[in-house]
Amino acid sequence: MRLERFGGLPSEEVMGRVRSAARAAHDAGLSGLLIQQHVDLYYFTGTAQRGALYIAADPDARTPGVLFVIKDPRRAAAESKFPVIRPLAKLRDLPEALAREGFTDMEAVGLELDVLPARSYLYLSELFPSIRFVDASSIVRRLRAVKSPLERKLIGRAARQLVSLFKATPSFFTPNAREIDIAVAAEAHLRGLGHQGIIRLRAFCQELFYGVVVSGPSGAVGSSLDGPVSGMGLSPAFPQGASPKIIGDDEAVLLDMVGAWGGYLADGARVFYRKNLPDRAARAYEVSLEIQDAVVNLARPGTPAGELFAAAERIAQSHGLLDHLMGIGDGRLSYIGHGIGLEVDESPVIAKGSDQRLVEGNVFALEPKFVFGDIGAVGVENTFYLGPAGPELLTDAPQQPVRVG
Amino acid sequence: MRLERFGGLPSEEVMGRVRSAARAAHDAGLSGLLIQQHVDLYYFTGTAQRGALYIAADPDARTPGVLFVIKDPRRAAAESKFPVIRPLAKLRDLPEALAREGFTDMEAVGLELDVLPARSYLYLSELFPSIRFVDASSIVRRLRAVKSPLERKLIGRAARQLVSLFKATPSFFTPNAREIDIAVAAEAHLRGLGHQGIIRLRAFCQELFYGVVVSGPSGAVGSSLDGPVSGMGLSPAFPQGASPKIIGDDEAVLLDMVGAWGGYLADGARVFYRKNLPDRAARAYEVSLEIQDAVVNLARPGTPAGELFAAAERIAQSHGLLDHLMGIGDGRLSYIGHGIGLEVDESPVIAKGSDQRLVEGNVFALEPKFVFGDIGAVGVENTFYLGPAGPELLTDAPQQPVRVG
Repeated sequence: MRLERFGGLPSEEVMGRVRSAARAAHDAGLSGLLIQQHVDLYYFTGTAQRGALYIAADPDARTPGVLFVIKDPRRAAAESKFPVIRPLAKLRDLPEALAREGFTDMEAVGLELDVLPARSYLYLSELFPSIRFVDASSIVRRLRAVKSPLERKLIGRAARQLVSLFKATPSFFTPNAREIDIAVAAEAHLRGLGHQGIIRLRAFCQELFYGVVVSGPSGAVGSSLDGPVSGMGLSPAFPQGASPKIIGDDEAVLLDMVGAWGGYLADGARVFYRKNLPDRAARAYEVSLEIQDAVVNLARPGTPAGELFAAAERIAQSHGLLDHLMGIGDGRLSYIGHGIGLEVDESPVIAKGSDQRLVEGNVFALEPKFVFGDIGAVGVENTFYLGPAGPELLTDAPQQPVRVG
Repeated sequence: MRLERFGGLPSEEVMGRVRSAARAAHDAGLSGLLIQQHVDLYYFTGTAQRGALYIAADPDARTPGVLFVIKDPRRAAAESKFPVIRPLAKLRDLPEALAREGFTDMEAVGLELDVLPARSYLYLSELFPSIRFVDASSIVRRLRAVKSPLERKLIGRAARQLVSLFKATPSFFTPNAREIDIAVAAEAHLRGLGHQGIIRLRAFCQELFYGVVVSGPSGAVGSSLDGPVSGMGLSPAFPQGASPKIIGDDEAVLLDMVGAWGGYLADGARVFYRKNLPDRAARAYEVSLEIQDAVVNLARPGTPAGELFAAAERIAQSHGLLDHLMGIGDGRLSYIGHGIGLEVDESPVIAKGSDQRLVEGNVFALEPKFVFGDIGAVGVENTFYLGPAGPELLTDAPQQPVRVG
């Protein structure tokens, strides 16, 4: 097994992202952006060390801004190609430190209010009484939704972890294997390929640990997770994922897992079974593939996301399966896909009624799944890069359910 | 391997916690607490499903409050012994839903402002224009710092995962093993014992994936992690933990890992080596044990946490190692231990100058570690329950460095 470290983001990548952010902040009438969440810091600078990045809303400025690092400044300097990096002892010193770099008289400054804790927001508001802080999270999400060639490559490598995983999965099925046994083997397999372990979601209190492994009725259990399939997990403390349930001979086993490389993620799901896949599960899986094909045929730069969701509903309806698409009855979720990159829950969301138009460079996971109270969950999930001619499959593993013997 | 699910928190546990919260809210002059973070929801109700828990500041009230569940209400009802659970379609309906349960005319209400996103806080402030929202995170932290007998038991089970891990660790050392190989094996070992996978930290952007494995100089690399030992990790995107570095014959290998059962965590570290432990590493490890003994002898209900830190510094100083305690030089951290429970970074923090007094029922991880630029990090870490007569060791594995052959 050959496994190197991912060294980091090159200068052009970092500078391109920062310039786009400066332009977006300028267009929004802001003086600048103050970025503090570690994933966004990594996105804009190549380091996730703790601190604050000020991006001035001037796309033509000589200095794009300053990265202030509280912990660990030495490591940040080694990791980041961002040109201006300064150590910062305490957040309290930020006003003075910004002034020292020539950034004064800011009026409106954008913050990541979707993730920044309220206490930090209130503290900043006191620290900078003359600045009006506004929510810039939609700017950040919009910028991050369009992937560069390097990002496509990194997500592609995360996707290949899943291809390797799905190929190896049948070997995990020992006699009397439980969901948790498959999960332990799958997790170790991914980790051995250089999976970073941690999977980030942006929404408050949303978590994933590699993904979920469910079998038969476990697939029908709902949870706080904003996804169609949760699983029972090992306790109510983390109520999702594999459980100690033994996998039956005639049950659909859904592996829905996330690959991760250099911070970038890919999401994919496949179905396995020991002896027989229940007829309804097999048929619903075929419909899932039919929806995937239809969406791939429709999705182009410019297509409104809601049209893709509507197409999925029409196909499910035509097979009498609408009540099982992405959940059961009134528990159904109103999306069939989500953007993915450094976080699992990125833009665009392929959601009911969404008029957000797809853009070349979007990367999204498409997951038309069906849930039944008795036989659980089935469906395919793949991560696609949206090229000029349509979606390109990154999780390029065989798509049919696999009998594990 | 026998592994059952942890079924959840019994009614007495949940009701005792909620009554304590009601009393604390009352003493703070609040009308009540509105809890939304998933870990706190689990602590107070036994379910981590998404929603909001209102605890009225009246410890003698007939109804302790209401748990409103957005997703998944059915699962919350199955998991939680909290007596009043209501489905809630959207957070927007909360004012009306609270009024329907008889909760009106609230004046000051406590929120978890340390973890609640700013956007959610601003939304609630608009939704309840007549309520003054205040920060109740210190109340929550104080309540959670005192563990019940059940919590002690659950943390004890998490600690036994670590005992099993440290016993098995020598078998992970294959020829030319890299840090990441030891990590993959250690993670799979813990997971196979029912480890939940996810490890929660409360502070903004702090993360752990099981823990860290470092060897030799890797132990000296700092990072954004608020701990003395980080490791290089696999990329700057998640800059901590094991790396592909091959473990040398004469290097200290520090395994610092977190066990997890039923949501509860235990933290422990041990040192391993192949052929020779460098002299300075061996001596510093002995000092780490000496500090541990001293702290165990001093720590009683009522002892100020700062006294324990001062004792650690005195001992380090007496061995000429003060400049290496918990980091190097001005990179040294100013604590040697931290409370642990559902999150790794709980109260009490055993920190420099802290006058916070220990309380019977505190559970803390004590980690007097030494860091050297050339030979890396060594030190012992154990999780203790503070009984009336002093700290009781939960991570009861042999303490000496282990030669792995």
